[in-house]
Amino acid sequence: MSAELRALISTAPLAHVTTLNVDGGPHVSVVWIGTDGDDIVSAHMMRNQKVRNLTRDPRAVLSMQAPPQPGVFLAEHAVVYAHARVTEGGAWDLLDALAKLYVAPDSTFPAPKRDGGYIIRYAIERVAGVGAWAAGGD
Amino acid sequence: MSAELRALISTAPLAHVTTLNVDGGPHVSVVWIGTDGDDIVSAHMMRNQKVRNLTRDPRAVLSMQAPPQPGVFLAEHAVVYAHARVTEGGAWDLLDALAKLYVAPDSTFPAPKRDGGYIIRYAIERVAGVGAWAAGGD
Repeated sequence: MSAELRALISTAPLAHVTTLNVDGGPHVSVVWIGTDGDDIVSAHMMRNQKVRNLTRDPRAVLSMQAPPQPGVFLAEHAVVYAHARVTEGGAWDLLDALAKLYVAPDSTFPAPKRDGGYIIRYAIERVAGVGAWAAGGD
Repeated sequence: MSAELRALISTAPLAHVTTLNVDGGPHVSVVWIGTDGDDIVSAHMMRNQKVRNLTRDPRAVLSMQAPPQPGVFLAEHAVVYAHARVTEGGAWDLLDALAKLYVAPDSTFPAPKRDGGYIIRYAIERVAGVGAWAAGGD
């Protein structure tokens, strides 16, 4: 992962995550993300549509914007193409860690603490978009 | 189109547009959008990947965030599932109109004015996400 992409993710951007449904159609939802080594990670308490989709087909895209800057022609953004792997457990702890970044430094994740859930690890394959981390839009 | 979704689009959000490549994999790029009647529209000077994809497979998803509000748990956003139709011509004029919203009221689209290009019309099929315009996340 480039230093620029890591810096972007550290600003706690909402990630628009695309996965593929059984019929081949696209599914998109908006999630919190973090990093673990060179991977991007997200956590989910329930076996929702994107968890089911990525268990079947690992192709994922995460698209995110940098914080807005007034007067900029097209805000910097990154489109990350990735191969996803779903693992079980540890979701609440990761969500609680992300709440410190996405909500406030003293926040606790506002759902009852419990074991289980799912963590998605996204191995980055290619980065597009507009900005220091990208090779240009398409 | 609901009044709430129309109001969201009037804030000039960047739209993360998902289309499908020949191999069935997802393609995502970030674009300006507007409304025309009950449709969402975007304009493109060149026959880029998403234009080619939507000419072949009309399934599209547009995901967008509302302007950020400090302290909100998960910013409101809309995920719009749509059937896209590509038409030729008129791209510069639409981009110039959108520049008034996305850049500044007195802006001109910063590419040489010329005829041609492509307009994508997105007929809305379903809206998901978090916020007044949506039925809840998935």
